Amino acid sequence: MIVMNTKLPLILLLLFSLIALPACLALSSSRETEVDPELMTCKHQCRQQQQYTERDKQKCMERCDGYYKKKLKEREMEQKECEEGGYEENRFVFGNKQFKTRVQTENGRVRVLQKFTAKSNLLRGIENFRLAILEAQQHSFVSPLHFDSELIIFTVKGRATIGLVKGDKTEKFNLETGDVIRVPSGTPFYIVNRDENEKLILANLHITASIPGHFEAFYGPGGRDPESVLEAFSWDVLEASIKVHKESLKWLFGRQNRGSIFRISREQVKSLSKGWEIPSLWPFGGQKRGPFNLFKSKSSVSNDYGRLYEAGPEDQGSLEDLTLMINFADITNGSMSAPMYNSKAIKIGIVTNGTGRFEMVTPHLSGKQQRKSSPRYERVSGELRPGVVFVVPAGHPWVTMAHRQSNLQILCFEVNARGNVKLAFAGKRNIVKAMDEKAKELAFNWPAEKVDDIFSRKEEFFFPGPQNLEDDEEELPHRADA
Amino acid sequence: MIVMNTKLPLILLLLFSLIALPACLALSSSRETEVDPELMTCKHQCRQQQQYTERDKQKCMERCDGYYKKKLKEREMEQKECEEGGYEENRFVFGNKQFKTRVQTENGRVRVLQKFTAKSNLLRGIENFRLAILEAQQHSFVSPLHFDSELIIFTVKGRATIGLVKGDKTEKFNLETGDVIRVPSGTPFYIVNRDENEKLILANLHITASIPGHFEAFYGPGGRDPESVLEAFSWDVLEASIKVHKESLKWLFGRQNRGSIFRISREQVKSLSKGWEIPSLWPFGGQKRGPFNLFKSKSSVSNDYGRLYEAGPEDQGSLEDLTLMINFADITNGSMSAPMYNSKAIKIGIVTNGTGRFEMVTPHLSGKQQRKSSPRYERVSGELRPGVVFVVPAGHPWVTMAHRQSNLQILCFEVNARGNVKLAFAGKRNIVKAMDEKAKELAFNWPAEKVDDIFSRKEEFFFPGPQNLEDDEEELPHRADA
Amino acid sequence: MIVMNTKLPLILLLLFSLIALPACLALSSSRETEVDPELMTCKHQCRQQQQYTERDKQKCMERCDGYYKKKLKEREMEQKECEEGGYEENRFVFGNKQFKTRVQTENGRVRVLQKFTAKSNLLRGIENFRLAILEAQQHSFVSPLHFDSELIIFTVKGRATIGLVKGDKTEKFNLETGDVIRVPSGTPFYIVNRDENEKLILANLHITASIPGHFEAFYGPGGRDPESVLEAFSWDVLEASIKVHKESLKWLFGRQNRGSIFRISREQVKSLSKGWEIPSLWPFGGQKRGPFNLFKSKSSVSNDYGRLYEAGPEDQGSLEDLTLMINFADITNGSMSAPMYNSKAIKIGIVTNGTGRFEMVTPHLSGKQQRKSSPRYERVSGELRPGVVFVVPAGHPWVTMAHRQSNLQILCFEVNARGNVKLAFAGKRNIVKAMDEKAKELAFNWPAEKVDDIFSRKEEFFFPGPQNLEDDEEELPHRADA
Repeated sequence: MIVMNTKLPLILLLLFSLIALPACLALSSSRETEVDPELMTCKHQCRQQQQYTERDKQKCMERCDGYYKKKLKEREMEQKECEEGGYEENRFVFGNKQFKTRVQTENGRVRVLQKFTAKSNLLRGIENFRLAILEAQQHSFVSPLHFDSELIIFTVKGRATIGLVKGDKTEKFNLETGDVIRVPSGTPFYIVNRDENEKLILANLHITASIPGHFEAFYGPGGRDPESVLEAFSWDVLEASIKVHKESLKWLFGRQNRGSIFRISREQVKSLSKGWEIPSLWPFGGQKRGPFNLFKSKSSVSNDYGRLYEAGPEDQGSLEDLTLMINFADITNGSMSAPMYNSKAIKIGIVTNGTGRFEMVTPHLSGKQQRKSSPRYERVSGELRPGVVFVVPAGHPWVTMAHRQSNLQILCFEVNARGNVKLAFAGKRNIVKAMDEKAKELAFNWPAEKVDDIFSRKEEFFFPGPQNLEDDEEELPHRADA
Repeated sequence: MIVMNTKLPLILLLLFSLIALPACLALSSSRETEVDPELMTCKHQCRQQQQYTERDKQKCMERCDGYYKKKLKEREMEQKECEEGGYEENRFVFGNKQFKTRVQTENGRVRVLQKFTAKSNLLRGIENFRLAILEAQQHSFVSPLHFDSELIIFTVKGRATIGLVKGDKTEKFNLETGDVIRVPSGTPFYIVNRDENEKLILANLHITASIPGHFEAFYGPGGRDPESVLEAFSWDVLEASIKVHKESLKWLFGRQNRGSIFRISREQVKSLSKGWEIPSLWPFGGQKRGPFNLFKSKSSVSNDYGRLYEAGPEDQGSLEDLTLMINFADITNGSMSAPMYNSKAIKIGIVTNGTGRFEMVTPHLSGKQQRKSSPRYERVSGELRPGVVFVVPAGHPWVTMAHRQSNLQILCFEVNARGNVKLAFAGKRNIVKAMDEKAKELAFNWPAEKVDDIFSRKEEFFFPGPQNLEDDEEELPHRADA
Repeated sequence: MIVMNTKLPLILLLLFSLIALPACLALSSSRETEVDPELMTCKHQCRQQQQYTERDKQKCMERCDGYYKKKLKEREMEQKECEEGGYEENRFVFGNKQFKTRVQTENGRVRVLQKFTAKSNLLRGIENFRLAILEAQQHSFVSPLHFDSELIIFTVKGRATIGLVKGDKTEKFNLETGDVIRVPSGTPFYIVNRDENEKLILANLHITASIPGHFEAFYGPGGRDPESVLEAFSWDVLEASIKVHKESLKWLFGRQNRGSIFRISREQVKSLSKGWEIPSLWPFGGQKRGPFNLFKSKSSVSNDYGRLYEAGPEDQGSLEDLTLMINFADITNGSMSAPMYNSKAIKIGIVTNGTGRFEMVTPHLSGKQQRKSSPRYERVSGELRPGVVFVVPAGHPWVTMAHRQSNLQILCFEVNARGNVKLAFAGKRNIVKAMDEKAKELAFNWPAEKVDDIFSRKEEFFFPGPQNLEDDEEELPHRADA
């Protein structure tokens, strides 16, 4: 279990997840000078745990401090974003403002990121993909619905049960953090947050087809709220097709008024979670079904500075099918990913935890090219905090860096991933080292062995980040003859 | 033979098919009060049939009445459409006004439906598809041509011979009502209406590629009318390539002036229809060729209220290839199809016979969403009569209903059909029944057994329609506790 | 070796390739009356060759004349194009003006054709394809870079070495005229013109994906010019990821200032060309790698009037992969290709050598259709000279004709080529002959045997062109009864 790598009592998670953050509104500026009541409550809870030894209590309180600092950092960044007009001008990084709330009830909400092509045509390659974040409070029920799009669900946080109507029965699966499940287009399904305390957060990737870039939700069962699609038919049509008198139908469709996400009882949760199936294998092969846990696969890269978990299509028989890879980067606090690029894939990254920074290099797109000999590049950067989305087109080098407060965790959907490779500019395997000597020498106008000396670091994929380096800056080698 | 299920003498068909209907123009409003001369002629013909017994004659005259009423209904609806501005504002239903006549000769015409994206981007998913209706009078010849698009031909009515130039010879096939044939992009072909009396009606689906949403006709052989594409080359190019003096070529290209669809003699028809090949298997598999009759396959659904015939791609080796399904619904007069939706496919329906009504539910597209808890839906509806086209995007529930005058027959092309399933909201198998008890109870806010009781009807796919129900409305059960 | 079919000493090629042609600027109009100094130099060089016999010298001087005439013709046509506003209004033929120089150094340049959709939506079917021409002077080096697009390289002229970084090493291949190699998206590569005298010309087809219709170059190694993409990252990011002090990095990235294409020494060329791998099989199958020579495959068509070399995808396991065919037509001087069309493919033709004319027939696109019986066609034509690009959509008949001065050589990329066939209107196999008798008779309104008589020429695919025919015009048969 990766995301939850500090085993803080669930109550703490609950506590901090209650700090609802209205986007771009009054954030108390006095927070840092006074002792925060939330922090006090957290520590108080630690002291109250009777089964804890004194050492346990001490550790617990330290975690309170850590979590508090992290939350504070996130809030600051959100506020900064709000005050500075946020990512408004940035075509590759999306913050709160670019999400629109589609569903909002007392017990949950669904926020949908604007179309990637909303502001520029640069992201037309992922026009068919839409990203949505579902949040459901503890013990809540998301009413049965179907979408006119394929849906890939990643469990960011929490414990859910999902029921999918297939043929004449309902298949149920339990979802834990890290679980991925595919809901085929048109499949009716419902979701239960079966946890008594923790909020459920799902990252949903919609792959649209019928109406490119658009997806719609259709609630079949329902009433007044959620409104049942059936109600939009004429009464004579409903009477004839359901074969029941219209007054009975009106009665039926007048019952439900709790909204599309509502709270249910412990008994109802228990009853709904019963009979779920044992998760089988990765659903991307077509034949297999049920969720797959990304974190239970062997991580493809792992060192002190981070870990990368990957899952993708291997040998799909059908080309029409997805060519999607899912990966999850867990970057150790204070560390960074190597500057690298995807050879073919377009990356859609969603920060699920922690804060940090994103930098990407893109050819200079606006204004005139100043010299004809070669293109000029510019830097796109953005602050990362939970919920921020960034897109990296194929070929574009990028880095992500974790602040020191906590690990930075990023869920990535990589589109057009068949045959994709990641190529790095630094680390054990990098394209400068792989280049033959003479070419390297000519390209840098500098002797190959000296270039190699500069690009000789041993770590791979994840490195200590800029902040760590600042501490021991004096140790940085001056390798060239400068 | 499904379409022609009343065996009226061909002469009647001929008679009524001659009632040419100029779109939105003078339709006599006195028709219902006076005895129509066409009806009189029809009945007169019945009485004249010497081989008929008295009973036959009586039946024949009854059929005249039936056909006449049906025609009248169609005309009324056409007029209604004309007067009310028709489907102008409807982005999912298309009538006469949305067809443009591309070819018009004394002996036939080709009408092409506007691009599906002409009025809104909602149908961009089927942008590459274009629908055309070819009508050719008895014993007529459609000059050889090729298209820059794949072409799927469905024989709505009549008896044709089609000749396809493949390699160094011409393959000929006979087409009957219900026959489907694929003409690969660029293949030169001609069509003969080999019937002496009956009009030939073909529904042509063009799958465009070279210029998305556009297809063009290229007449190779020809002259002044149809103009041969060759004539547009320079004379020196033609002389050099054909190796014949320009005066001879001018002579040759000056011969044909009968238009692209013209009448031919009985002998010419006979000669052209000679040597056709035995229809083999379904052409969608790639290897097989020739037409396939949709009605000779086992109908996938059949009961008193309707029948559904289907054919589609099973295991195509090539993904580039079509992912198209063709089906044909024959809805018994006064009956309806169940409210259902396609999980993935976009349906393009063309009414080939009868009249009725169409209802579809779509998320409320215009204006502001009024509450955030769940989407609101609106009804799209349209009157159905021969020639009306409707589109149902994936996930959108719809019903079609037949008036009592006659069966309603609908040809459907379903695009993006690989892995598509139809899911119904009512009938023997429906998604409400398939949902597990507790979820159903929560979704409707009503005990599961009572919901089940409401959704318990036994028929499947086709039901008695609203009009039938009106008669015995008192019998409709009041199943809920209302 | 096809392109270089006259074995003129390399020095001559060099001489004439130096005649730089500023587009649409002062071209001396006196050239034809005076003896051109370039021609004199050429002939002088012939006389100086000590190893030549007198006959060799004579032949050499004749080749000077031939080459000179050819160059002159090209210049005239370029000037004509310039003066007349060129192909500005033509949506299917592109000349110099439609190319934009992206890279220009003393030692080479890269010119990129505008997007095919720049002026009209008619070519949306090839929107994802972009064409670029790379020219590199003798003994020059194209700095390592990667693209965010698939790249197909065709060696128009010259001798190159290409180095591709794959995994942790660099694979090197030698390229000769006619060699085709695929550089997968994102692969870093460099190019060397290893010839001491001859210019290298490559035709590059970019298949864009990440940003449709856009591709970008990313130079990893580099400095100030070409600018390294790495430099656009923050210094703290670079320091941390490369683990070297920023002053050293600044030094490193300050070294290179020779541009992206620069001259290198004979020794450097030798060193770079060392260790190249034996070209293996056609790279389109996916497994095989390295270049493939188009001219070493059996030509699919060959007669006195021309030859066609073809290579394309046969049985690709993956459908996502390219469905591209490459062919090369070498039309004998004074000859032409038959009027024909592609059944499915869209052709992108690039003239690599010689001059000539292009004619294509397209349905009348602008203005109202004048009669409803059949479409009208119009001719699109263009003068062909090296560098001119033309596009032929599927279904559209076209011809290409070589002037008498030299063979006309055309490289074609055919997009959407799976299952494509070429259908001709004249020659041994043509669609008029293949049509059955009665249909032909009806279509032309003329007896079948007389039509056949007209379409009876025996040659196939390549014919004597219009100019040749002019000489013996009296011999042209008057075959019809005109």
